[in-house]
Amino acid sequence: MARWDATAATQRVLERCTILGALSETPDNLTRTFLSLPMHDVQSLLLEWMREAGLTAHLDAVGNVRGRLEGLRSSTLIVGSHVDTVPDAGKFDGILGVLLGIEIARVASKMEVYHSLEVIAFSEEEGVRFGFPFIGSSAVCGSFDPAWLTRTDAGGITLEESLRNFGLNPLEIPNAKLDLDALLGYFEIHIEQGPILEHLDSPLGVVTGLVGQSRLTLEFGGLAAHAGTTPMNLRRDALTGACEFVLEVEKLARATDGLTATVGRLETLSGAGNVIPGAVRLSLDVRHASDVVRLLSTNKLLELARQLAELRGLRCGITQNLEQSAVPCDPALTSRLVGAVLHGGLSVQRLTSGAGHDAMIFAPHCPVSMLFVRSPGGVSHNPLEAVFESDVEDALEVGCTFVLDVLGDHSA
Amino acid sequence: MARWDATAATQRVLERCTILGALSETPDNLTRTFLSLPMHDVQSLLLEWMREAGLTAHLDAVGNVRGRLEGLRSSTLIVGSHVDTVPDAGKFDGILGVLLGIEIARVASKMEVYHSLEVIAFSEEEGVRFGFPFIGSSAVCGSFDPAWLTRTDAGGITLEESLRNFGLNPLEIPNAKLDLDALLGYFEIHIEQGPILEHLDSPLGVVTGLVGQSRLTLEFGGLAAHAGTTPMNLRRDALTGACEFVLEVEKLARATDGLTATVGRLETLSGAGNVIPGAVRLSLDVRHASDVVRLLSTNKLLELARQLAELRGLRCGITQNLEQSAVPCDPALTSRLVGAVLHGGLSVQRLTSGAGHDAMIFAPHCPVSMLFVRSPGGVSHNPLEAVFESDVEDALEVGCTFVLDVLGDHSA
Repeated sequence: MARWDATAATQRVLERCTILGALSETPDNLTRTFLSLPMHDVQSLLLEWMREAGLTAHLDAVGNVRGRLEGLRSSTLIVGSHVDTVPDAGKFDGILGVLLGIEIARVASKMEVYHSLEVIAFSEEEGVRFGFPFIGSSAVCGSFDPAWLTRTDAGGITLEESLRNFGLNPLEIPNAKLDLDALLGYFEIHIEQGPILEHLDSPLGVVTGLVGQSRLTLEFGGLAAHAGTTPMNLRRDALTGACEFVLEVEKLARATDGLTATVGRLETLSGAGNVIPGAVRLSLDVRHASDVVRLLSTNKLLELARQLAELRGLRCGITQNLEQSAVPCDPALTSRLVGAVLHGGLSVQRLTSGAGHDAMIFAPHCPVSMLFVRSPGGVSHNPLEAVFESDVEDALEVGCTFVLDVLGDHSA
Repeated sequence: MARWDATAATQRVLERCTILGALSETPDNLTRTFLSLPMHDVQSLLLEWMREAGLTAHLDAVGNVRGRLEGLRSSTLIVGSHVDTVPDAGKFDGILGVLLGIEIARVASKMEVYHSLEVIAFSEEEGVRFGFPFIGSSAVCGSFDPAWLTRTDAGGITLEESLRNFGLNPLEIPNAKLDLDALLGYFEIHIEQGPILEHLDSPLGVVTGLVGQSRLTLEFGGLAAHAGTTPMNLRRDALTGACEFVLEVEKLARATDGLTATVGRLETLSGAGNVIPGAVRLSLDVRHASDVVRLLSTNKLLELARQLAELRGLRCGITQNLEQSAVPCDPALTSRLVGAVLHGGLSVQRLTSGAGHDAMIFAPHCPVSMLFVRSPGGVSHNPLEAVFESDVEDALEVGCTFVLDVLGDHSA
């Protein structure tokens, strides 16, 4: 492996995170959704940086920026992450993985590699603008559904119009698809977005899989009545019933290893301080790396909701909003990543990803593997999102070792 | 006592409730706030009906409709209730007591009474338009504060402008004040607005007092974080802490005789289904006929809120919004009312009023007494609000017995 200056490369990554973090739709914070105006500048810079790192770069028809390093073979390892953000975002979520990918490619470009490498900056992953995620990686994997073109954003603009307005041609989307048979694997470096690595005092984490998710809406219905004139024993209070359920959700998740279960939103409907709540709506989000554990836990919670409602004479309505299966990372590719971590002199911390990532879109087509970088305070989707410089350097070294190992493997 | 047809009078009362219930600011339901346009028609009808019942009637400077029957003495019993409504109201809250007062006065007008009687239809009691209640009765009792004239409604109109726009002269408000030294007492018939009488299978209830109220806002603050990436043991969830508090509120109220404690409104602030709630705001409404019980209970609940917050590492902010003392009904006047109930052959059910009424404004100046009419289903502040015709007839007979007893008492 050629001599290279990992510290200088880390500096460059962090400076570029700040440069891109200033490109926003909004003046006072970072909000950069799919195909928003500042995305033009992001793409120009990424094309420039990819080319300067030795890649052949172009923009594809859904706005992904793609940089390619041809090896002796066309078999290809993808290194990618996304460049869109949530509203009021931090500057590392997504971007960090793209810029680390470019630095890894810079190192690889200095040697003759056996397999090919493609670094992709996905134009959409967060699902903010059109209400569904993974548009960029879906186009690359050939799973972009033409029906999505008629979906509209909050301003009533269709996905098709947004592509054309941005200067892209929706008819060319099929050309964005990679040759799936030539895919060696997909690798992504991403901030953890949670507190586990900090809690373990570890800079990096090897992802064993991405959790499956169940998302539901529950509505408890009681009888709205006067808070002063209705004695406690003659009430049908939808809120107290809902609160019992919220606490049962927490209790079950605490008692079940690896399960997260969250009521993120709860509101009394048309409530007033002097009226006993007649209706309460709440969200339920259940995640686990095992689909069986998630489904059984969700069913148990829904059964509890019905029981609690019945005890209080409440109605209980349940709506299923999302059902997403867990995606395991590839054991072989992941054990190579473990090797790269050990090669860097670091301890190996394995964890599951509680969030969704583009790796889920690649998983049906090729082995996937992910490396997490510690999130100080576990903070993400927030301007306070941060990284430690030394963690980023560790990630760069481990990523580099891993990618060069894969690209140089003549047995693959 | 002159012969009179209580059934016909009851019919008249119920028909007139329907007539007035059709006079609304809104086309599809009943909403009639203080000095709104339909109030002109309400006043015209009430003036006509009072005069037809034998009263000398006029409109005072805050829009109260007042009908007077002069006795041999100027000492006066007031019989009143209000004619404004909450939004999307029922047609009996307030109005029923005014119309029963007119029918009682009709009977009294047929005889020579010793004391005088004044029936008052208060223009404002609900507090909807200007955010504070009892404007009508305050003017009658001389406690109308001129500073109120600068308060504005949701449309930015001041109370002073609203009076002038309606054709009233704010400078004449002091003339609306009664001679407080001549007050014999205040009597009001009102629907219960709760389920107690229905539960007791009783048409009428004798009110022993009006509860005091504490109203507060509590805010629990935790740490908003990703619902998928933050394990259960590393969360500071503001909602689960708030839910524990809601259940403690219910538990304490259930264990404390006569106490009502209600969280009527609760919301996760800027929440999303996939974010652990970082902040929750909720209302707390505590009522009891004893101020001591209410204040000690409220303090205990706030102490519990702080303890529950501390256990979970949450912040807990508390804002006091209202502190209103309990008002006991006058024992002597109330025992006369009990006598009238017994005279009607009915069983005596005593209860406290969990809601505020104009009697609270009169209580510092004269003995007050109230009679409640059963509310089917306990429903009020709702288009489904109802009364049983036979209950209204019972209320009319009892009210008549009571008022004639007071008016004829030469010892007073």
